[in-house]
Amino acid sequence: MGRWEPNAHERLERAALELFLQRGYEHATVAEITERAGLTTRTFFRHFTDKHEVLFSGQDTLYKLFAAAFAGAPASAAPLDAIAAGLEAASAVFSPERRELARQRQAIIAGNSELQEREMLKRASLATVMVDALLERGVTDPTASLAAELGVLAFRTAYTRWTDPANQQEFAELARQALHELKTATTALA
Amino acid sequence: MGRWEPNAHERLERAALELFLQRGYEHATVAEITERAGLTTRTFFRHFTDKHEVLFSGQDTLYKLFAAAFAGAPASAAPLDAIAAGLEAASAVFSPERRELARQRQAIIAGNSELQEREMLKRASLATVMVDALLERGVTDPTASLAAELGVLAFRTAYTRWTDPANQQEFAELARQALHELKTATTALA
Repeated sequence: MGRWEPNAHERLERAALELFLQRGYEHATVAEITERAGLTTRTFFRHFTDKHEVLFSGQDTLYKLFAAAFAGAPASAAPLDAIAAGLEAASAVFSPERRELARQRQAIIAGNSELQEREMLKRASLATVMVDALLERGVTDPTASLAAELGVLAFRTAYTRWTDPANQQEFAELARQALHELKTATTALA
Repeated sequence: MGRWEPNAHERLERAALELFLQRGYEHATVAEITERAGLTTRTFFRHFTDKHEVLFSGQDTLYKLFAAAFAGAPASAAPLDAIAAGLEAASAVFSPERRELARQRQAIIAGNSELQEREMLKRASLATVMVDALLERGVTDPTASLAAELGVLAFRTAYTRWTDPANQQEFAELARQALHELKTATTALA
């Protein structure tokens, strides 16, 4: 088998998610994933460090999109506008083709407490990414921390709705809506 | 040795913190902790499940104080006033005698990435405690989630300042101050 396999990353991801759902995350092995995908374990390890990374590697891309959007927002943009730009950019990852995979991923994580912890930690690191980006923009604390928590809440809300099988709206629209609701809640709270 | 040892919980805690600081959290054993405290391992396991719990068991008390204060706040109290009552109640745990122990604890956690993750997860569960209490008070989402994140930020800020060796203010005062700063930031953000 050659070094290069068309679409290997996604084939491995689809095979892994199916297997995690059918057999449970703990019981599925890398060998079973690659067999189902019709690829070798060598190919698997060119794309992922371990089976855990199949579920979480997408978040690094997401954080990079966020950081780039923050950096690109005009210097005069208010903290929540910079966050809106970040959410808008993030929606590139949440394309309609990814929706079913994201739903499978959510179901797998919901069934495993270790994965839930990992997801929570990833969210905490998203808050850190946002705080750092806001501090770099000259926003001071506690405004930066508060705006970041609001951004994470908006992201979480949008993602939960987007992965809800009953929902048909696009991610970008859901993110705008969640941010708007949170802005309104902020006004009420203050 | 009898079943009952005066002040065993605190003696074990002090011995453990000293040992973690001197030898590193990973290398200290329960046997060494009990030896230093002049107690048996049986006594240790009546107080803690493992050495990890020495660092984190106090948070359960904290969450109970929070929950009780929330439940006791007048029905008419605004979300941030209920959170202020929770922080006020929490300050009972952060007495002047505990300050040095808390500083040691912070230094130990700062030096170990697994403990840092555990601390982050505990904070996420504090947010959950607050959201649940607010929902029970009839506050709706996203206001409940937003107020809870604000409460966790106020708590974190107060705790960080309280464990800073350069700081001499009491916890209750630091918590009021942090909450006030966050309220001001909320107004600016909205």
